[in-house]
Parts: sequence; structure tokens; C-alpha cells
Amino acid sequence: MTRRGQYAKGAAKREEILSVALDVVAEFGCRSASNREIARRVGLTQPGLMHYFGSREELYMAVLKARDARDVAEHWVGKPNFEGFLDVIEHNTRVPGLVQLYVEFSAEASIGKHPAHEYFVERYAWARDLSVQSIRTAQESGEFGPNIDAEVIADIIVATADGLQQQWLLDRSIDMVARLRAVWNGVAALSHLGPTAGGPSDG
Amino acid sequence: MTRRGQYAKGAAKREEILSVALDVVAEFGCRSASNREIARRVGLTQPGLMHYFGSREELYMAVLKARDARDVAEHWVGKPNFEGFLDVIEHNTRVPGLVQLYVEFSAEASIGKHPAHEYFVERYAWARDLSVQSIRTAQESGEFGPNIDAEVIADIIVATADGLQQQWLLDRSIDMVARLRAVWNGVAALSHLGPTAGGPSDG
Repeated sequence: MTRRGQYAKGAAKREEILSVALDVVAEFGCRSASNREIARRVGLTQPGLMHYFGSREELYMAVLKARDARDVAEHWVGKPNFEGFLDVIEHNTRVPGLVQLYVEFSAEASIGKHPAHEYFVERYAWARDLSVQSIRTAQESGEFGPNIDAEVIADIIVATADGLQQQWLLDRSIDMVARLRAVWNGVAALSHLGPTAGGPSDG
Repeated sequence: MTRRGQYAKGAAKREEILSVALDVVAEFGCRSASNREIARRVGLTQPGLMHYFGSREELYMAVLKARDARDVAEHWVGKPNFEGFLDVIEHNTRVPGLVQLYVEFSAEASIGKHPAHEYFVERYAWARDLSVQSIRTAQESGEFGPNIDAEVIADIIVATADGLQQQWLLDRSIDMVARLRAVWNGVAALSHLGPTAGGPSDG
């Protein structure tokens, strides 16, 4: 096989592994049993699986990137606004293992020297940008008034969504979508009121 | 030594270890280097250290309980309200390793079979209760109007605080206290407005 052919074959196998990994992690989370199950489904040993990713951290980053790409294509492209974001949250309730992977891996990666640290810094900037975009869209449609600091509100919405995920993992009866909608509606009401929502306070 | 004397000695050593662990984890986080440092400071080997706690999970739960007890005594007893809560958050910015331990360990423990799962379920109920208590106090003083669902707002405040911790670990320039104060002030404004803040929405 040519070098180019080998490369293409490797890339195809990598895609196959990621597709299987999304399903397995969604159902079983990121415990070692999952790596065994992924390897089994793609006909590799666990060391063979790692050959395609180099390390556990590379595999998890690739899984989370594949998940984001899928979520954007399925939920955000058609609705690049807060409703699209809520669709992603609603979808998350059906893939608890991916939520578990995200929460555990992002926590572990929050120390500076972790190999996925930079990935999560960039992902937060990206998530915050999407949230700012939702707010601007709501301002353009008149749903939101002008009186908010979009950057601060975006941070708060992303933080609330993250914190609710943690609560939901401990107690599946928590309605993340309803809670986030309450936050959004509250911000909407405030944005028509005065000049301080999300802004500095003298309180 | 009598059995009672041995027990008292063991309990005293456990207290000494916890006090040292609070300092070491606050500075260095919960990596294995911390366990070595804790053992060194209390004059034990690492297996000797584990003799007092049984497992890494028991040690971390004991550290987090000791931290909560200290935070309540130093920040909450004198101000059992939202200002007391913000004092704890402000204090957290000076003990990054404890924030790291909390975020990582709570994420890891969110799967049902983890030995600390039940501890975090109970701790969330406790944190939510304190938050509800702050809201009721604000309603009694007139800072908050009557028109909020205190339970939902409490969930949202706890979630926002958790999510902001995660962002702050990745980017220490995030002002958690200012963000939380903005949320609180927003809820205050909404609570005087209408019947729906934090309640069900037809949005």
C-alpha cells in the first residue's frame, strides 16, 4: 500500500473508532470497561485502540470534539440561538455517559499541566462565543432589550449549564432545560428594565 | 494504654492529619504529591496515613467535611445569608487546591457506584438548603419580593457557583464573586416584578 493509502486507511479507522466511541461512552461513560467495549466493537485490542490515539487523553479529546461537531450539525446549524442550545441540553439527557465524560475530564483537565487543559480553555471560549451569539440574536429580534452585558450573561449561562449537569448526574430528576429557560426568561425580563443587568453592581 | 486511650490518640492524630491536609491540599491540590507531603508533615509513611482513613476516598471526604466545617464557622455563622456565601467564594480564590479537589472529586463521584456518591448527594441537599435560607432571609428583609420560587433559584445559584468554579480553575481572571452578585441582584429585581421569576414558563 502507498504511504497515502495507509494514511487514508488509518484516518478511516480513526473515524470508525470515534463513531463507535460516541455510542459506547454515551451509554457506559468513560470507565475502563468502555475502552474494552470500544476495542471489541472495532475489532482491536486495547493497545491497538491506543495506537490510533496515542493516549487516553487524546482519545477523550477526539470523542468530545466529535460530539461537539455532531451536536452543532444536528441542533445548532438549524437553530443558532438559545433554542438550539436547549436542544443540545435536552439531547444530553439521553447520553449520560458523554455528560459524565465531559464533567469528569474537564474537572481533571482544569490543572494547568494536564494535556487537555488548553483544549478546555479553547472550548470554553467557543461555548461563551455561541452564548454571546444567542444573546445578540435575541437582542436583534427584540426578545432581549439592550440593557445587558452580553459577555457576563454568557459566562453565567455557560456556568449554570455546567453546574446543572453536575446536579443532574447526581439526581436525574433535575430538569436542566426548565432551569435554563427560567434563567433565560429572567435575563429577558431584566434586559428591558434598567442599565445594570449583568453589569457592575454597588450592592 | 487503655483501649479508650488508644482511641483518643487515634482521633487526635486524625484531627492533626486533617488540619495539615487542609493546608497542603489548599496549596497543591489532590495529586499524589500532596499525599506524600501530608504524610511527611505528620511524620507518617503514605500507607501509615491511609491507616487513619482506609482509602483515598475516605481521606478526601474527610478533608471536604473539615473544610465545610471551617467555612461555616468562619464565614456563615456570623452572616447566615448571601453575603456569608460570597465570603466563602472569596475565600475559595485563596485555596485553589481545595477548589480543584472539590471539582475533580465531585465529578468522579457523580457515577452511582462511587464510594463518595452519597456524600455529594447529601452535600448538594445541604448547599441548596443554605441557599434557600439566604433567599428566605432576603424576602423577610424586603430585599427580595415574594415572586420567586426559592427552590428553583437556589438550584440555579448553586449551579452557577459550581460552573464558575470550573471556569475560574481554567482562567483565574474570572471574578466569581462579581458574577454571583450579578445573579443575586438580577433575582432581586425580578422578585419585585411579577409572578414568574424562576417559575414555570410558557416561553
